[in-house]
Amino acid sequence: MNGDVLSLVGKNIPKKDAPLKVTGQAQYIQDIKLPGMLWGKILYSRYPHGRILNIDTKRAERLPGVKAVLTGSTIPDIKIGFMKDNPPLKKGKVCSMRDEVAAVAATSPEVAQEAIELIDVEYEELPGVFDPVEAMKEGAPLIHEELKSNVLKLPWKLICGDVDRAKAESAYIVEDTYKTQWVTHCCLGTSGCIASFDVNNNLTMYSNTQIPSLAQRDYIDALNAFGLKNKRVRVVQSVIGGGFGSKLDTYPYEYIAILLALKTRRPVKILFTREEEFFATSPRQCTLTKISQGCDREGRLTFREMEMILDNGAYTSWGATTPSVMMMPISSLYKVPNVRYTAKCVYTNNNYSQAMRGYGNPQATFAIESSMDQLAEAAGMDPYEFRMKNANEPGEVTPQRFKITSCGMKECIEAVAEKLNWKEKRGRHNGRGVGMASLIHVGGGARVYKSDGCGTIIKIDDYGKVDVFTGSTDIGQGSDTVIAQIVAEVLGISIEDVNVINNDTDVCPWDVGVHASRTTFVAGNSALYAAEKIKAEILTIVSHMLGEDVAFLDIKNGVVYSKRDKEKSMPLGKALRSIHYATGGKMLMAECFYDPANENFDREFKGNLSVSYAYGAHGVEVEVDRKTGKVKILNYVAAHDVGRAINPMLLEGQIFGGGVMGLGYALGEEMVYINGVLKNGNFLDYKIPTAKDVPPIETIIVETVDKDGPFGAKGIGEPGLVPTAPAISNAIYDAVGVRIKDLPITPEKILKALKEKGAEKLDEA
Amino acid sequence: MNGDVLSLVGKNIPKKDAPLKVTGQAQYIQDIKLPGMLWGKILYSRYPHGRILNIDTKRAERLPGVKAVLTGSTIPDIKIGFMKDNPPLKKGKVCSMRDEVAAVAATSPEVAQEAIELIDVEYEELPGVFDPVEAMKEGAPLIHEELKSNVLKLPWKLICGDVDRAKAESAYIVEDTYKTQWVTHCCLGTSGCIASFDVNNNLTMYSNTQIPSLAQRDYIDALNAFGLKNKRVRVVQSVIGGGFGSKLDTYPYEYIAILLALKTRRPVKILFTREEEFFATSPRQCTLTKISQGCDREGRLTFREMEMILDNGAYTSWGATTPSVMMMPISSLYKVPNVRYTAKCVYTNNNYSQAMRGYGNPQATFAIESSMDQLAEAAGMDPYEFRMKNANEPGEVTPQRFKITSCGMKECIEAVAEKLNWKEKRGRHNGRGVGMASLIHVGGGARVYKSDGCGTIIKIDDYGKVDVFTGSTDIGQGSDTVIAQIVAEVLGISIEDVNVINNDTDVCPWDVGVHASRTTFVAGNSALYAAEKIKAEILTIVSHMLGEDVAFLDIKNGVVYSKRDKEKSMPLGKALRSIHYATGGKMLMAECFYDPANENFDREFKGNLSVSYAYGAHGVEVEVDRKTGKVKILNYVAAHDVGRAINPMLLEGQIFGGGVMGLGYALGEEMVYINGVLKNGNFLDYKIPTAKDVPPIETIIVETVDKDGPFGAKGIGEPGLVPTAPAISNAIYDAVGVRIKDLPITPEKILKALKEKGAEKLDEA
Repeated sequence: MNGDVLSLVGKNIPKKDAPLKVTGQAQYIQDIKLPGMLWGKILYSRYPHGRILNIDTKRAERLPGVKAVLTGSTIPDIKIGFMKDNPPLKKGKVCSMRDEVAAVAATSPEVAQEAIELIDVEYEELPGVFDPVEAMKEGAPLIHEELKSNVLKLPWKLICGDVDRAKAESAYIVEDTYKTQWVTHCCLGTSGCIASFDVNNNLTMYSNTQIPSLAQRDYIDALNAFGLKNKRVRVVQSVIGGGFGSKLDTYPYEYIAILLALKTRRPVKILFTREEEFFATSPRQCTLTKISQGCDREGRLTFREMEMILDNGAYTSWGATTPSVMMMPISSLYKVPNVRYTAKCVYTNNNYSQAMRGYGNPQATFAIESSMDQLAEAAGMDPYEFRMKNANEPGEVTPQRFKITSCGMKECIEAVAEKLNWKEKRGRHNGRGVGMASLIHVGGGARVYKSDGCGTIIKIDDYGKVDVFTGSTDIGQGSDTVIAQIVAEVLGISIEDVNVINNDTDVCPWDVGVHASRTTFVAGNSALYAAEKIKAEILTIVSHMLGEDVAFLDIKNGVVYSKRDKEKSMPLGKALRSIHYATGGKMLMAECFYDPANENFDREFKGNLSVSYAYGAHGVEVEVDRKTGKVKILNYVAAHDVGRAINPMLLEGQIFGGGVMGLGYALGEEMVYINGVLKNGNFLDYKIPTAKDVPPIETIIVETVDKDGPFGAKGIGEPGLVPTAPAISNAIYDAVGVRIKDLPITPEKILKALKEKGAEKLDEA
Repeated sequence: MNGDVLSLVGKNIPKKDAPLKVTGQAQYIQDIKLPGMLWGKILYSRYPHGRILNIDTKRAERLPGVKAVLTGSTIPDIKIGFMKDNPPLKKGKVCSMRDEVAAVAATSPEVAQEAIELIDVEYEELPGVFDPVEAMKEGAPLIHEELKSNVLKLPWKLICGDVDRAKAESAYIVEDTYKTQWVTHCCLGTSGCIASFDVNNNLTMYSNTQIPSLAQRDYIDALNAFGLKNKRVRVVQSVIGGGFGSKLDTYPYEYIAILLALKTRRPVKILFTREEEFFATSPRQCTLTKISQGCDREGRLTFREMEMILDNGAYTSWGATTPSVMMMPISSLYKVPNVRYTAKCVYTNNNYSQAMRGYGNPQATFAIESSMDQLAEAAGMDPYEFRMKNANEPGEVTPQRFKITSCGMKECIEAVAEKLNWKEKRGRHNGRGVGMASLIHVGGGARVYKSDGCGTIIKIDDYGKVDVFTGSTDIGQGSDTVIAQIVAEVLGISIEDVNVINNDTDVCPWDVGVHASRTTFVAGNSALYAAEKIKAEILTIVSHMLGEDVAFLDIKNGVVYSKRDKEKSMPLGKALRSIHYATGGKMLMAECFYDPANENFDREFKGNLSVSYAYGAHGVEVEVDRKTGKVKILNYVAAHDVGRAINPMLLEGQIFGGGVMGLGYALGEEMVYINGVLKNGNFLDYKIPTAKDVPPIETIIVETVDKDGPFGAKGIGEPGLVPTAPAISNAIYDAVGVRIKDLPITPEKILKALKEKGAEKLDEA
């Protein structure tokens, strides 16, 4: 298949849902109204840490239009989230400013808001702890007293080879500490849901979740806890205005909506304001990383050692599992035989953290790739040459037991260097500089759950139009379009002939969720194999009709034809109708559940996490204003090994989007928490790069045609974000000789570093 | 499978959708509102036959809130319906009072109605013809001038054996003429639809159609005619408040909604009032039937000859094809070796006719079974004995080439006679009488279209809950519940574990429609085979897990177990999760397209129309008031060979419903058309039997376990209606000695007949 001429795969096909979105016809959660629907609102905590002494809801209950008021003591005792440490409504204690204390359902959002303001809560404020290092100290306030410690019982530890010995034998060693900040996903569509029970107490949940199948299971568990046994839960996904990992879990507001709907027997909608979206959703956690790397005299990496502390916040979501993905670049970005990594997730009175695009990889890669430049310098090597020497190659098995199959890392690094005119531009130290950083990411799924599978069902009508039910979720990345391309390519039909249905657990097969850059690979393969089943059936039947060996038959442009005999052909629709209208006829349908043959980590956190790995390298040329500390990106080159670009335009969109998110991460974005209080929770104060801030990003697509990917493709959803910060940091160092080790790289930090460097120089002088 | 003990099949399980319906949560077309939706209204003709001279829409267009006004000359030139003789909006000529002349879309139904009243139409009235016999005469007004004749070019003619010879050799011959009236379906949910285009001009049609797949094709054809090529059409079925055949076609109002939506770029809803439901939907046509039957000296039927004239009305829908189904009782009700049948469908200026429960069978059976009593009398035989002598039997091949497999006709006739205490009660002529009539109907599909198939897709989750996507449509008969029972029985789960999805062409596989009593048989088999695929897969995998031969494994009550070794068992959910969570795991899905091996008629209208046939006999005891002519039903016994009763309660519901509809047909219902004008188009004047009018109907279920039916079941949707009228007519004859040969049997007709009979007696005296 891959060797044949492709009709649709590789073509720039606009997103199928674009016309609906630009004309406002797409139905976001904001647009959905159900008959008799009520509006829910949540009262959050007044303190980051405190004891709830009393809640008086009487005044709220009396307000006309209020249909229900709930508090922690009036709901069943359940805890939710990855470690089941988070009650939907808190009782006894609050542990962060985001803690949900009470909720109302009312006939309008305005009445609901007014009711919230009428709820009186008495607190006893408790001393808080807002820094994970402080939180680990003896005598620090405990977030969850019953756990006896603020350190989560998640034993993140990876040991490969013998780091101590390698350290002793290394020619050059560098060591440093890197910090990253809190950032948030900034989905343009705010969070929301509608919970609706039918008369049988079956629940329909309208949601913009990234994990419909897992969320369904969470809700069923909750219903069981509420005493509603053996009920059906249907998750209907609205059009989703961005996910980026923020919707990889179920959250208190969803259970609050469910409880309000149960109590009122009416559908209840909770829709976040932009302010809530900032302070009441779970951000990317901040990290503190100690890294040490060494190489031998020839510049070959000998070891990498990292210790990391992550601020978990007050409760636990999937954010606490990001160290598992961080192990990937730590163990397998460049050839490094000896690796040691430990990470501690620590409870604090901050907001609790969640997955975000890259899932820890950007934090880890910032430390690794900054340290790579430091080590190259220590070894007296050009950072480009140093990277090329250590770059990963096809056929490698990394210390964590990743089996590297397709690998275009060197091609990416070379392409970036060439485009940047690296040799000429590196090392001028004249206020302009170039820098680069590489990345590895899972490109063929990631077995972080018991299954990494995705199901597809396809049916084809009498005229060659198909409906594809996919488990996968399109959160704006364009997966529906890519799946349509794959199916249309296999069946030799046009993209308009494919209808992708992806938004209803009643209809769509199971899928573990949209994360880990897995959708094109996993859902794509699932769709591919289902389509191939149908194609095989068509060709077999038509081979009898046409009297031609099936091996010589194919379908293109809606015609089944013989590749060796022009006389033998039949319009696809005619063939389908012949199959259908025969006595005992049939209409073709097929299903496929594709679960990649990747591995869950063993107890030592080793195993082939993904069936294939994506590589890339970003390079930037910067100009640093020594007076203002301002960084201007002059050139940005992003090279990615994507296996095969199924839709180059959408793929570039992912790289652009990732790059821009990376720019924000590198240069400006930061959630400013002071003693647990978010100080810049709005788009005026929390600045994401806008179109005018963004330099042109030049993309280079390296196609390695992965043997396991659909038409050779690998994942590209997250990689674009991963190397941006270290590439920029490295370029700044090249430009002005200072290295900023904590993100974001603000002008203030550059000025301070320049000043300190000046002082150093004076000292040296 | 059939031989095993059944858990759910055969049980009285309440309809799955009953709680939603009784609490008002079910969403009928009446309940569906789309954002921005407009309301469409139709202006109908002022005359049954006339020339449209001018239409002035200016005043309507100027009315605030009116968004579009359409007339026949402002829409594309298309014709719809079974013979493509019906433009959605008429131009040039109107041919019935129901003719659609103009339409508006406005912001409310009230404004739309007002606008309709502001449209001025000038007509030249033309002479009409309202009787098919008149319409066939030389010089009668032509409905469609271009056709040169009012007789439809549908050559309904069935000839089996040699009728002339049989006639000559018969010992007894009777001949008579029977008439049936116009009746209508009286669906409690009136007709309606919403047409909605997205920005890509793909159409979503919310509809209560009985034929989602065929309607989809009709709409696509229309879009093509409107210049919208290669567009997707999605038909979403609301909960349907009754069908009875009325929704077996697409109608002008649907195309009008589409055209208004296209013009306004907004969703347009057209919802019929009760009055429109009476005069602007297509009724069961009236028939005039000449029948002659003969038998030999022993009372064995020798021949049956029938000539029939059907009033087609002004246009053609599937009503014109009912003679094809009438051939079934004509050729195959009782053993009759020689058969001749011709039918003519004739255009008139009446409303055009459509299928209705029984699809012509009640009209034909009224003549046949009335004539059977006449012939029995002529031969000096008891009508019960006469029927038993001629009853069909298993293994028979009828003159039309129907292959009779399971057949419980004799059991039905015997059971009715016994319950009625026939021998004692027959022949008293004291104002009380008993009568009976039998029926044959298709019970295993009916190949009236190129395919008689239905598709099913099933997916099962980690806990043994399944979603079933069926092509079939539940119009209130309870097919969703029956399908759920079948799937739950196969998979050994509970009825609550099965979710049936049946309302969306995007999701549901193809199905020819809900008609011909085919859903339990065809959709049931389709679901059965899909479920069996999944079961086989589960058992195969579990046999490895448990180390047990697959032949000894089964599933009951959610447990996979060995039938020979109690130690070997595993909860179904656990088995499914083990299958899912294995590396390269899978979640089980299966599909099946089941098309019964029945045959389209050949050119001589012969062939095995159905895979199996349903039989039954109804018997009544009546009391006739000689002074008022009023008929009181004292006893009503309905015996049906159903193969197997999957859900006896729902099955009895079908028999009750059919019986009640049959009572209305026999004794009171009639659409009174005078010169093409419906005079009683409302529930005050058109009286259907209400609960208080209905006698207790005693049902007798005869189970013959059909070899091809799902768990042995055959269809039962229509049969309950078929023999009611002749059974009553025969009982009246037994009671008071008069035979009413034209339906309905009103007190006036009885009095008139009694009077004539009295006069006869006087004459004789």
